[in-house]
Amino acid sequence: MEGSTVFFIDQELLPFRFSIGNAVTFSESCEVIRTMRVRGAGAIGAMAGFAMAQAALAAMPQGYLTFLEKAKLAIESTRPTARNLFHATETVYGAALESPSSAVLAANRLADKDADDSQKIGELGNVLIPDGSRIETHCNAGWLAFVDYGTALSPVYVAHQQGKNVFVYADETRPRSQGARLTAWELGQAGIPHAIIPDNAGAWLMSLGKIDLVIVGADRIAANGDTANKIGTLEKAIAAKEYGIPFYVAAPTSTIDHACPDGKSIPIEERPEEEVLWMDGLTADGRHERVLVCSPGSHALNPAFDVTPAEYITGIITEKGIIRPCREEIWKV
Amino acid sequence: MEGSTVFFIDQELLPFRFSIGNAVTFSESCEVIRTMRVRGAGAIGAMAGFAMAQAALAAMPQGYLTFLEKAKLAIESTRPTARNLFHATETVYGAALESPSSAVLAANRLADKDADDSQKIGELGNVLIPDGSRIETHCNAGWLAFVDYGTALSPVYVAHQQGKNVFVYADETRPRSQGARLTAWELGQAGIPHAIIPDNAGAWLMSLGKIDLVIVGADRIAANGDTANKIGTLEKAIAAKEYGIPFYVAAPTSTIDHACPDGKSIPIEERPEEEVLWMDGLTADGRHERVLVCSPGSHALNPAFDVTPAEYITGIITEKGIIRPCREEIWKV
Repeated sequence: MEGSTVFFIDQELLPFRFSIGNAVTFSESCEVIRTMRVRGAGAIGAMAGFAMAQAALAAMPQGYLTFLEKAKLAIESTRPTARNLFHATETVYGAALESPSSAVLAANRLADKDADDSQKIGELGNVLIPDGSRIETHCNAGWLAFVDYGTALSPVYVAHQQGKNVFVYADETRPRSQGARLTAWELGQAGIPHAIIPDNAGAWLMSLGKIDLVIVGADRIAANGDTANKIGTLEKAIAAKEYGIPFYVAAPTSTIDHACPDGKSIPIEERPEEEVLWMDGLTADGRHERVLVCSPGSHALNPAFDVTPAEYITGIITEKGIIRPCREEIWKV
Repeated sequence: MEGSTVFFIDQELLPFRFSIGNAVTFSESCEVIRTMRVRGAGAIGAMAGFAMAQAALAAMPQGYLTFLEKAKLAIESTRPTARNLFHATETVYGAALESPSSAVLAANRLADKDADDSQKIGELGNVLIPDGSRIETHCNAGWLAFVDYGTALSPVYVAHQQGKNVFVYADETRPRSQGARLTAWELGQAGIPHAIIPDNAGAWLMSLGKIDLVIVGADRIAANGDTANKIGTLEKAIAAKEYGIPFYVAAPTSTIDHACPDGKSIPIEERPEEEVLWMDGLTADGRHERVLVCSPGSHALNPAFDVTPAEYITGIITEKGIIRPCREEIWKV
């Protein structure tokens, strides 16, 4: 954030173009989150915090509180499942009650803490990755999805930097293909060996003994460890359990929602069917095109997340330590 | 088949255009199978039978047998997993040893039997579909995939014709999207209520109690009931077992390979990575475009099938009856 403008990596243009976007007002920031130009648990949280600070800077002294509250609701309505978003709006709203400059400070602190937490998750998660590991990941929980480092990919980066041989199977992650577009792009930038696989191929590779562990991120973790993450995570967790493969969730403790007793209380965002029916990409001669990829006239369902029950999760890698979600004591971290 | 020309529905052009293609030589027929302009267990079988007959018609009396054998190997190399293909080449090759006209007769009989079997599968499978059923299916095993009626969809068509309310969740089925393109198109033509879902959404809908049963087709069934079918079938079977949802395979007995003791002996076709990395479709203004949908430079794996162990399968719906693959007696049908 510079002045009242927020700068962000425009993830809608990746992997074909790396470009920095900017949002001048809190409403623009909301739109950036809603349309997923900024997506990923930590990145959404940081953007939401800055949006809240933008609102504080824009509010007139008269009606300051009313304006802030309206802005808070507007920001929170963009992505209902993302816990980090609510964590950010609540924190920065609290600071904004003091002054707009406190709000800006709080938003910056949140963003810095997100990067710090992700870095710690990388160091702690690294111990779970033996040399030679073949790791499956779903969606994108790398540095694009956070302020830096990422969660699910952070331990992979550390393992790679330490000279371990790692190979990543990146689930394509339909309908928005964050795996094929963002995770593959991140891994390519870092020079980490990887292959994109159709979401359908996970269980098959597991059954052939080709996957040693699964690491995914999280959008909201209920108090009992049930975890909402990108749609399809549940399928991988069930398959991993079936084949006895460790299944880790990597997330900062800010993703834990103590007010949600279990997965049933997590609201699941339903996104427009167009994300399933249409797909965009680059033609062989470099034009950007959007094409209908299904039978014209048919409709689609597009739940953005699913909930993986705690009993499928081997451990949750947080910035404070690796916790086992089936144990009561974990929530004291 | 008319004269020595085989006519087929060009599935590469669907769902955007319905067009009848033709293959004049057995080599052209091979190419039609390899490139999946004709795909689907029964349709591949019928096309392979006609290709074998084309070879018999084209063979000179001198070197007749050598030519036939070479043609048989060429046809069989197009899609290594598809049992119906081998069933067809073996049957029509046997007839071709008598005369080319016997080969044509045998190929026509095979195609007719495929339609008959599919019709019977529909009638028998219909009893498994209670009124109000919400059915998930993977890939396309409807009438496009066979000479007529289909296998997985055949019982759905019968249930619908009998006035039962049915709703079909059609898995998109990446990478080739046969569910979103072909199954959705077939269901749309028949006026059957349906929704396309990302492959990632199956387990989530099951966990919410929104799916009553799963029916899929099969490309090869081993003697013990292990079933090779489109990649992703295994994930659905594991999830269905997890949630106690019936999981049926629908296939004619010609799909059973008694020479394969179990799933481990079924060869699994690996297809080009381009099928994962690129996607084609229709632009809003009606142009057909092919676009790169992943991070440039990344590679992909593309196993075309997986194997679902018999213990996950509630029953196999054949033209001779519904058999339970965990029981020994089933293989006497």
